[in-house]
Amino acid sequence: MGYQAAVLGASGFAGAELLRILQRHPTIEVGVAGARANAGRAVGSLYPGLFDDFDLTLVSLEEAAASEVDIVFSSLPHTHSARLFEGEDSRKLVDLAGDFRLHDPAVYREFYGEDHPAPGMLSDWTYGLTELHREEIAGSSRVANPGCYAAGALLAVIPLVSGGLIDPNTLHIDAKSGVSGAGRASGEGFDFASVNENLRPYAVTGHKHVAEIEQELGLLAGKPVRISFVPHLVPMTRGILVTSVGERRGDATTEELLEAYRAWYEAEPFVRVLGATELPQTKHLSGTNRAEVTVRVDERTERVVAISAIDNLGKGAAGQAIQNANLMLGLDETTALLGPGGVP
Amino acid sequence: MGYQAAVLGASGFAGAELLRILQRHPTIEVGVAGARANAGRAVGSLYPGLFDDFDLTLVSLEEAAASEVDIVFSSLPHTHSARLFEGEDSRKLVDLAGDFRLHDPAVYREFYGEDHPAPGMLSDWTYGLTELHREEIAGSSRVANPGCYAAGALLAVIPLVSGGLIDPNTLHIDAKSGVSGAGRASGEGFDFASVNENLRPYAVTGHKHVAEIEQELGLLAGKPVRISFVPHLVPMTRGILVTSVGERRGDATTEELLEAYRAWYEAEPFVRVLGATELPQTKHLSGTNRAEVTVRVDERTERVVAISAIDNLGKGAAGQAIQNANLMLGLDETTALLGPGGVP
Amino acid sequence: MGYQAAVLGASGFAGAELLRILQRHPTIEVGVAGARANAGRAVGSLYPGLFDDFDLTLVSLEEAAASEVDIVFSSLPHTHSARLFEGEDSRKLVDLAGDFRLHDPAVYREFYGEDHPAPGMLSDWTYGLTELHREEIAGSSRVANPGCYAAGALLAVIPLVSGGLIDPNTLHIDAKSGVSGAGRASGEGFDFASVNENLRPYAVTGHKHVAEIEQELGLLAGKPVRISFVPHLVPMTRGILVTSVGERRGDATTEELLEAYRAWYEAEPFVRVLGATELPQTKHLSGTNRAEVTVRVDERTERVVAISAIDNLGKGAAGQAIQNANLMLGLDETTALLGPGGVP
Amino acid sequence: MGYQAAVLGASGFAGAELLRILQRHPTIEVGVAGARANAGRAVGSLYPGLFDDFDLTLVSLEEAAASEVDIVFSSLPHTHSARLFEGEDSRKLVDLAGDFRLHDPAVYREFYGEDHPAPGMLSDWTYGLTELHREEIAGSSRVANPGCYAAGALLAVIPLVSGGLIDPNTLHIDAKSGVSGAGRASGEGFDFASVNENLRPYAVTGHKHVAEIEQELGLLAGKPVRISFVPHLVPMTRGILVTSVGERRGDATTEELLEAYRAWYEAEPFVRVLGATELPQTKHLSGTNRAEVTVRVDERTERVVAISAIDNLGKGAAGQAIQNANLMLGLDETTALLGPGGVP
Repeated sequence: MGYQAAVLGASGFAGAELLRILQRHPTIEVGVAGARANAGRAVGSLYPGLFDDFDLTLVSLEEAAASEVDIVFSSLPHTHSARLFEGEDSRKLVDLAGDFRLHDPAVYREFYGEDHPAPGMLSDWTYGLTELHREEIAGSSRVANPGCYAAGALLAVIPLVSGGLIDPNTLHIDAKSGVSGAGRASGEGFDFASVNENLRPYAVTGHKHVAEIEQELGLLAGKPVRISFVPHLVPMTRGILVTSVGERRGDATTEELLEAYRAWYEAEPFVRVLGATELPQTKHLSGTNRAEVTVRVDERTERVVAISAIDNLGKGAAGQAIQNANLMLGLDETTALLGPGGVP
Repeated sequence: MGYQAAVLGASGFAGAELLRILQRHPTIEVGVAGARANAGRAVGSLYPGLFDDFDLTLVSLEEAAASEVDIVFSSLPHTHSARLFEGEDSRKLVDLAGDFRLHDPAVYREFYGEDHPAPGMLSDWTYGLTELHREEIAGSSRVANPGCYAAGALLAVIPLVSGGLIDPNTLHIDAKSGVSGAGRASGEGFDFASVNENLRPYAVTGHKHVAEIEQELGLLAGKPVRISFVPHLVPMTRGILVTSVGERRGDATTEELLEAYRAWYEAEPFVRVLGATELPQTKHLSGTNRAEVTVRVDERTERVVAISAIDNLGKGAAGQAIQNANLMLGLDETTALLGPGGVP
Repeated sequence: MGYQAAVLGASGFAGAELLRILQRHPTIEVGVAGARANAGRAVGSLYPGLFDDFDLTLVSLEEAAASEVDIVFSSLPHTHSARLFEGEDSRKLVDLAGDFRLHDPAVYREFYGEDHPAPGMLSDWTYGLTELHREEIAGSSRVANPGCYAAGALLAVIPLVSGGLIDPNTLHIDAKSGVSGAGRASGEGFDFASVNENLRPYAVTGHKHVAEIEQELGLLAGKPVRISFVPHLVPMTRGILVTSVGERRGDATTEELLEAYRAWYEAEPFVRVLGATELPQTKHLSGTNRAEVTVRVDERTERVVAISAIDNLGKGAAGQAIQNANLMLGLDETTALLGPGGVP
Repeated sequence: MGYQAAVLGASGFAGAELLRILQRHPTIEVGVAGARANAGRAVGSLYPGLFDDFDLTLVSLEEAAASEVDIVFSSLPHTHSARLFEGEDSRKLVDLAGDFRLHDPAVYREFYGEDHPAPGMLSDWTYGLTELHREEIAGSSRVANPGCYAAGALLAVIPLVSGGLIDPNTLHIDAKSGVSGAGRASGEGFDFASVNENLRPYAVTGHKHVAEIEQELGLLAGKPVRISFVPHLVPMTRGILVTSVGERRGDATTEELLEAYRAWYEAEPFVRVLGATELPQTKHLSGTNRAEVTVRVDERTERVVAISAIDNLGKGAAGQAIQNANLMLGLDETTALLGPGGVP
């Protein structure tokens, strides 16, 4: 028995990655794909790498959004989902944008700079980091996929905050991302000559993903959490590396913290805990839904450094969305998501 | 029913790509992997991208070469295979090096600068470009995989030479490759700072792959063929683009030549002929066994320009080797080799 | 005594490179810089790398074009110069676009796809490859700077065609360029994710620069010349590498051809002839006005391979323009143009 | 009147950058250059970008170290200088390694893992970050150039620590560097395929540069300072970006902190303070001795984020060394060091 899926925003990088992964999926078939600017164009002409796998012509967003399918993936910019999915809906919905990640509309206003377009719907959605909310996701029909930075940041520090091993309000998170996170056709500053041989920070305070990181860490800590966060743009296409630091509580050693990580992630199919002699690298998991995480104590400063690597289009977007979809449809969570990353 | 495989040279890029692809193979299982320098090391420590998929420790070359398996893939440098496989052998052998690609030991001496180590064995081997020798490969137990440049160059011009549409002795082939073709640990001149933001030619005359290109084109043309060939190193990891030019015979138009290409490659599962408005790009097929080819007439000079793109580690090495192995074992030729390339 | 210069198109890459080089010029001062889209913006905000060196605000093109200066550099797209400089003009003019490179308006129509906007002015302009027309440039007040590919291609083969060492009508030129040649804000296909880890050809027949290459080679050969030419886009910011091949006339050896190159370029301050053991690399001369050239005989095919490397923004654009300006103003030709390239 | 210089370690990247900059120097001439592995090789063959500027053959380290020159630049790995310069020396010495940066041999032992080879000489050397010790450097004959990360980190936070605007013991410094910092021929993990499209941390605790950062911040703070520091390797050749965070003391706004930065760096010829709407980028100053710095208050967490960008081979190595040499020789500090960075 199979499921039909609609992909909204299929001409963007996350949308294309959804198609790329779903091409291997034995149970979910992409029945319709919608786009804003590229409606009418064949998937294979827009993304020749998908040419042999999809005989699919992009339709308008409206048509795709209205299609009778079992599950809808939306990788449209935020505010689209709130409008497209405002009514009753018997379909499963996975939204890759920020519309429904936050539970509190006031926090949404603070970080998104405008009132939430549909605050009444917020409680219908589940925050979709599987490692935190697996059961809730499996029982939900509306899942808000995490932001790419949030996925990386949370995976880096969950065992620390959950275990009370650091003071969460001392956390500083330094994140570095490849440029595919900024999407296609991203204009001035994203041409090759501006990105290549260059490194730059942006959104030094108030990045939108801070809100969801704080929300989820607050749930783990049992109290409000405030963190600082600085993202950077790195001259590569895919990958996020997150380096977090916070004040240690207690006197756990690196080995003890690694043990806590191994315990927390023991049953997780996509998270690999690296030991004391290995460090995460984005290339290890490029093109996959995997994460690498590790942790060290800096004895001189009594701080803990936690590091994670993910593919921003994988665990940071499309891979995570399909992991959630698998759960929502009662399938094996890893379907279509296993297999190695690029070598080299 | 399954097959056991040995991979020799598993710590190199082509060896790692063999592992990466075979991980998805439903029938061929990697039973043993051998390496020179890295024997004793776990595959997952050498290539963390393969960590979750292989619980395999590299053994010595000798041990791997002697293993009782159904099929052996060797991605060792040339001269190794001639020594390792000199005796009777009931196993299927696919060699990715240059030892057995040439039929004529005199040509081997001219291009490799030394006598062939085992000229008596040359006739046991089949040249393994599937698009030229499918049936022979299927019936063979020893297949010599093409050189990466040769695979790209031949796919670009086969329909022209085969159809008598150009004068093959006027062919000039300009090839550009990413650096993974040079292998791992490749020393001075291959560090990032020397490759990045740089472009350079090498082996301007006499590149080893010229010999096999000429051999195969000679068979197609029914007479000896001599070509010129210049390879270049491009600041990217994967991909080969080949741009060939030769004098047109007759007065075929671009559209007629494209028709000849479509006819030749019609049943080929891995070759996509691009029409008059598209051009090959390496990124389209990065990570796959695919090729993109196209052709144009330059009416002003009465020349024909033929262009192909492949992944040097895919159709140029490991993908092609597994395509051959599938045929040799009586399996569907595309097993483990379909699916999209990287997006973006 | 100093000269005042106007730079038109200062917000593009070639315009910025003109500013960068002129910043070091002891005699020519940039008095005004004009741009289309960025008029009103400070040079240092558009190009922070120039921040400390220019306290200059971009003005409109019209204002800059009308300024009373000694010399005008225009790096606007073609057709602009023909309109801006149609009247009498006592200023020296160096145009980096294609408006006045061709002597024959019929050829212009063939390659540019439209009638020449000011055919009556063509004879006022000198083709500005210094190595071919030094004296004429020194005596001229209007110089049309060569196209970037044309500069690279001509430097590679001038000694061959001039000396009758090849048959010029057999020439095929394969050119590879970094993406800064396509200019800033170049839209779809030029974002980092589309360029990085990718290699692609374009304009496989009929590139505009073919016209000027043929014109200049025809002058050297004393008869019409037709060549084929294929450009490629390489994932790097700066640099052009040209690999040319043609049929040898006579039986000159590589060493004899190198001698002819050394003789031709002996007094040239910016062209370095590499011997039989060295090959051009773009990184060697990144950021400079230099060229590296070399030549080889392919004895097996009786062909000659000639290779050159330049910086597309240096000898291929701004450096060459300033070399010409120095000559036009009676200055030492190398002023502001010497000094090493990037290391590494 | 001119000075003769010796460059030790001329075959490394920092050594080559010393040559590149000194080529423009009107007063300091490179009389001799020494190298370990490449003695006997011409500078122009090792670095063709320097070909036209240096007719210099590398000599042995011993010969270069013993040469009678006015000033010696050593970019050898640490422990070399301590041995080469142990006796009386009338020459000026600038060491780019770590031998003499630390005042306390116990700290050296802690971070370098061995006893200091010449503790008695430590007091003869001045720490060479010009912005901190200009007068002392001008009067010194032995200057220890800062580590590349230390230069970037100190420039980012000096005004904060000096002004008591943050609690220095809460500082966390996240640093990202291009790979030229690791030097030439740097072996496994530094080939193009391992670096490209990859991002990785290293030395998560205990990097050697921490010691000198703490030493200098301690001097500014008037008390011992302990910081945490995590460096990362970014797929680019040149550039360091440092992002520092610490707890604000008092209630200064971003604008007030920027004012403090402007005041501190007002007379500094190489440090540009960016305002509230600009952020440092490494490309802005690639190839120069410049730094860009800026600062922000994160009001939500009461933390201060300070960011700097330098070229690791410029202000992080060779540029800084020549700035120091200019001071030591009584020259204008900016000699040979002004001029724009790469555009684009």
